[in-house]
Amino acid sequence: MNGRLLITCPDRHGIVAAVAGFLASAGANIVTSDQHSTDPEGGEFFMRMEFTLASDDFAALGHAFAQQVGERLDMSWRLTDADAPKRMALLVSREDHCLLDLLWRHRRGELPADIPLVASNHPDHRSDVEAFGVEYHHVPHPNEPELLELLRGADLVVLARYMRILSGDFLAQLRTPIINIHHSFLPAFAGADPYRRAAERGVKIIGATAHYVTEELDAGPIIEQDVARVSHREGPEAMVRIGRDVERSVLARAVKWHLEDRVIVHGNRTVVF
Amino acid sequence: MNGRLLITCPDRHGIVAAVAGFLASAGANIVTSDQHSTDPEGGEFFMRMEFTLASDDFAALGHAFAQQVGERLDMSWRLTDADAPKRMALLVSREDHCLLDLLWRHRRGELPADIPLVASNHPDHRSDVEAFGVEYHHVPHPNEPELLELLRGADLVVLARYMRILSGDFLAQLRTPIINIHHSFLPAFAGADPYRRAAERGVKIIGATAHYVTEELDAGPIIEQDVARVSHREGPEAMVRIGRDVERSVLARAVKWHLEDRVIVHGNRTVVF
Amino acid sequence: MNGRLLITCPDRHGIVAAVAGFLASAGANIVTSDQHSTDPEGGEFFMRMEFTLASDDFAALGHAFAQQVGERLDMSWRLTDADAPKRMALLVSREDHCLLDLLWRHRRGELPADIPLVASNHPDHRSDVEAFGVEYHHVPHPNEPELLELLRGADLVVLARYMRILSGDFLAQLRTPIINIHHSFLPAFAGADPYRRAAERGVKIIGATAHYVTEELDAGPIIEQDVARVSHREGPEAMVRIGRDVERSVLARAVKWHLEDRVIVHGNRTVVF
Amino acid sequence: MNGRLLITCPDRHGIVAAVAGFLASAGANIVTSDQHSTDPEGGEFFMRMEFTLASDDFAALGHAFAQQVGERLDMSWRLTDADAPKRMALLVSREDHCLLDLLWRHRRGELPADIPLVASNHPDHRSDVEAFGVEYHHVPHPNEPELLELLRGADLVVLARYMRILSGDFLAQLRTPIINIHHSFLPAFAGADPYRRAAERGVKIIGATAHYVTEELDAGPIIEQDVARVSHREGPEAMVRIGRDVERSVLARAVKWHLEDRVIVHGNRTVVF
Repeated sequence: MNGRLLITCPDRHGIVAAVAGFLASAGANIVTSDQHSTDPEGGEFFMRMEFTLASDDFAALGHAFAQQVGERLDMSWRLTDADAPKRMALLVSREDHCLLDLLWRHRRGELPADIPLVASNHPDHRSDVEAFGVEYHHVPHPNEPELLELLRGADLVVLARYMRILSGDFLAQLRTPIINIHHSFLPAFAGADPYRRAAERGVKIIGATAHYVTEELDAGPIIEQDVARVSHREGPEAMVRIGRDVERSVLARAVKWHLEDRVIVHGNRTVVF
Repeated sequence: MNGRLLITCPDRHGIVAAVAGFLASAGANIVTSDQHSTDPEGGEFFMRMEFTLASDDFAALGHAFAQQVGERLDMSWRLTDADAPKRMALLVSREDHCLLDLLWRHRRGELPADIPLVASNHPDHRSDVEAFGVEYHHVPHPNEPELLELLRGADLVVLARYMRILSGDFLAQLRTPIINIHHSFLPAFAGADPYRRAAERGVKIIGATAHYVTEELDAGPIIEQDVARVSHREGPEAMVRIGRDVERSVLARAVKWHLEDRVIVHGNRTVVF
Repeated sequence: MNGRLLITCPDRHGIVAAVAGFLASAGANIVTSDQHSTDPEGGEFFMRMEFTLASDDFAALGHAFAQQVGERLDMSWRLTDADAPKRMALLVSREDHCLLDLLWRHRRGELPADIPLVASNHPDHRSDVEAFGVEYHHVPHPNEPELLELLRGADLVVLARYMRILSGDFLAQLRTPIINIHHSFLPAFAGADPYRRAAERGVKIIGATAHYVTEELDAGPIIEQDVARVSHREGPEAMVRIGRDVERSVLARAVKWHLEDRVIVHGNRTVVF
Repeated sequence: MNGRLLITCPDRHGIVAAVAGFLASAGANIVTSDQHSTDPEGGEFFMRMEFTLASDDFAALGHAFAQQVGERLDMSWRLTDADAPKRMALLVSREDHCLLDLLWRHRRGELPADIPLVASNHPDHRSDVEAFGVEYHHVPHPNEPELLELLRGADLVVLARYMRILSGDFLAQLRTPIINIHHSFLPAFAGADPYRRAAERGVKIIGATAHYVTEELDAGPIIEQDVARVSHREGPEAMVRIGRDVERSVLARAVKWHLEDRVIVHGNRTVVF
């Protein structure tokens, strides 16, 4: 099996040695290892290790890790099976560029996930989506109960330009990570119509931001951002066109990193290994 | 002589032909020409032309232009002598990276300007500045009357990380364009301590913005912006270090463009040719 | 009608005035104008103007322009109808990312062209292409006569990762502009297997180049280039994946600019307005 | 003490555990850890760890590491004292932008090094350099024996736009790492006059490359590269101006990484942690 171990704990002496020693004694070979500390003295410590192991008994490995390392060092930790693709559901409204990009990357083998379904408040994308062999559900807004039912069982929900606001109740019931792509360089231009407001402010660079969804709109932990230059020649329409390319690549990177268990949320920030 | 003509007017038929025809009949050779229209129907039209002319009589050329073209087509226009360097005064507080970068570039011939003086609310930079053969004035804050006196006669004032707020009264009396460098990607993180706030928000990209100073803090017309990537590894101190390189290059470009008469302010936005 | 006028001629006094004056007297309204001179004294002059005109008689306008301006000023010039989409044929081999990206953009209205056909030396992309309502032709290599027959009538041929070399004879007979995307930052790594060679050289940045095809491989006039960062972590396979995103966006920009008549070839270089 | 341990060895099971375990048992606290493997099966393994340790006895630590870990796992390794600044000598010819940038960054505390001297084949920079409190030596070319004498004792030599070729004999005798900044995006435009050749080829992006010097000109292991966009408007002179900013920032990053022991050379490539 190929496994990943993600750890958050108070920084102190000997963490790397304890974890690496545990994995070695369990017969695991560490393939990559990344770590970060906010402060070696009294800070927070983050680590991600990928390893290979002859055994497939995750439960036993986790149990042993908890007993021998995790509890003693006060760790929040997560052990994931790198060979088990996550189930990723996509939500989309009218704009199809992020949706098609994710479906195409998935077909290329760039995204280690299963895509059980695409749901949309518009009927428009059915044939495109079905051509990729993926189920399409038209769920007119507002119908959160139906959405909730569809998304049960997903490990990740991606808002690939889904332009409806999900209620706090919905989020509380879903309890699944949700990644959104916002078409601005947050925290600038949170909320509606960011390209129009960017044009009015006369910015020289526009951007896009992929973040985890929290109840406060466009305020969740940022996973990835990128930008593109604009000039006085680009009004809001041209910004929309240029911005599409930024949005789709930012979202694809964020999704890929999440699927590879590279993202650790810490307060309202992320560590991306 | 080498001249530049900058024009803002309501868009309508025949503007380019009228201006180009006037310059040709005056014996001028157009070297570069840029134009922009917000909308060919009822929009605003902007143009910048560089030209060479045998005569040196700017006043006559301007007078003729006003009579034959400018008034008829409702133009705001400006005629500048490309061979006459502008007088550029620099204000700085403690951080020297933007200051030294501008002085180096000036010495290398990159910035077509005279630098009559540097003024600072700190005494620290005297020997550095004087090594460039430039006067240094230490003006402890707040002493706007002394500053005003020093800056009279400047064509441009550059706030090269000058961390004091200039009063509306001061701006009204100075009546000279002022370019500021703000160490964030505006409109995000206007005001104090942008790197600390960027780190707290967990952004993945930081930026800098050069803009004209207006009475509202960090809200004037943006001339140029640029960005640099950061990650969870960079706290506020590392952002300060990385940001310095962005700040100095953004400010240098904005200053250069202003000195070359490439920037037209229109409302709260700029056209940069 | 909406027209575009592209001009190349020896630089001299009065060109802008002559052209703008002609268009004004013909009743045209200049919407955008760009110009470039390699040297005001004895250099080469390039200009592109977009204009609107009540009449639709292109032939008459061209005839008058030749007589009144073009011949006198030694111009190479081209007058195009901005409302007439060019016919753009696509050639592709096994990699589909550039192909699909162009088809998506076309469907979204980003590319002002008709796409009469896609031809490939592989049968694989038929259903993808036909889903866009575009004809698909499988032309096993080498069959240049059949290709030539298919491409007759095209205004532009785009090699969207077409990995076969077209013979000099073929190019001579086709006489249509051909845009190729090469998966390196030319002139580095011209020819086969650029990502493998980039990895072996240990570069820290990879790139892609869109250029017009000439008989010498990967040596034609460059239209657009862009890059992406890599590190020691990225071997050739990861470079292929990262490079795809660069290739498709570089090719899309180059194609768009060509379709909008923004590119003037001059020797082995391009002016892109 | 603060130490750094750099390791290259054949990849196999248990390396991280062995190293981390050794450091933990020696009382060291690992502050950061990075690793890379070209292939978990039979590849090459690289690691860099920063650690703190109560003791200051580097020799004892190194001795113990060799015996307990290094020899058994076939390691090339290097243990460095993070508190001991390296001695960095700078060579420069006429262009001063890289030189001044390094001196200024050093004064800002960005570069953990001592700068014992600057040597140049030109006398021009004496007063600038001495203003930073650094010795200046004018060594007219060719005088490799004098240079060699001056550079003895340096831990690093930086060619900050030094435009003379150093002989293979000189390199063999000096035996100190040398970092050069080449003003092109290598491997394109190795050798003389890269900006002129870039302009002739009509590239749309220019670059700069920092690399270790080897006997073959501009062919040594690349540490860092970066780029800037140009257009038809930029001839060789403008490229020189734009390129300066890229050169100085690329060189500064490469030098900083070397000084922080982040670069491992492997064949003709680098791993940069």
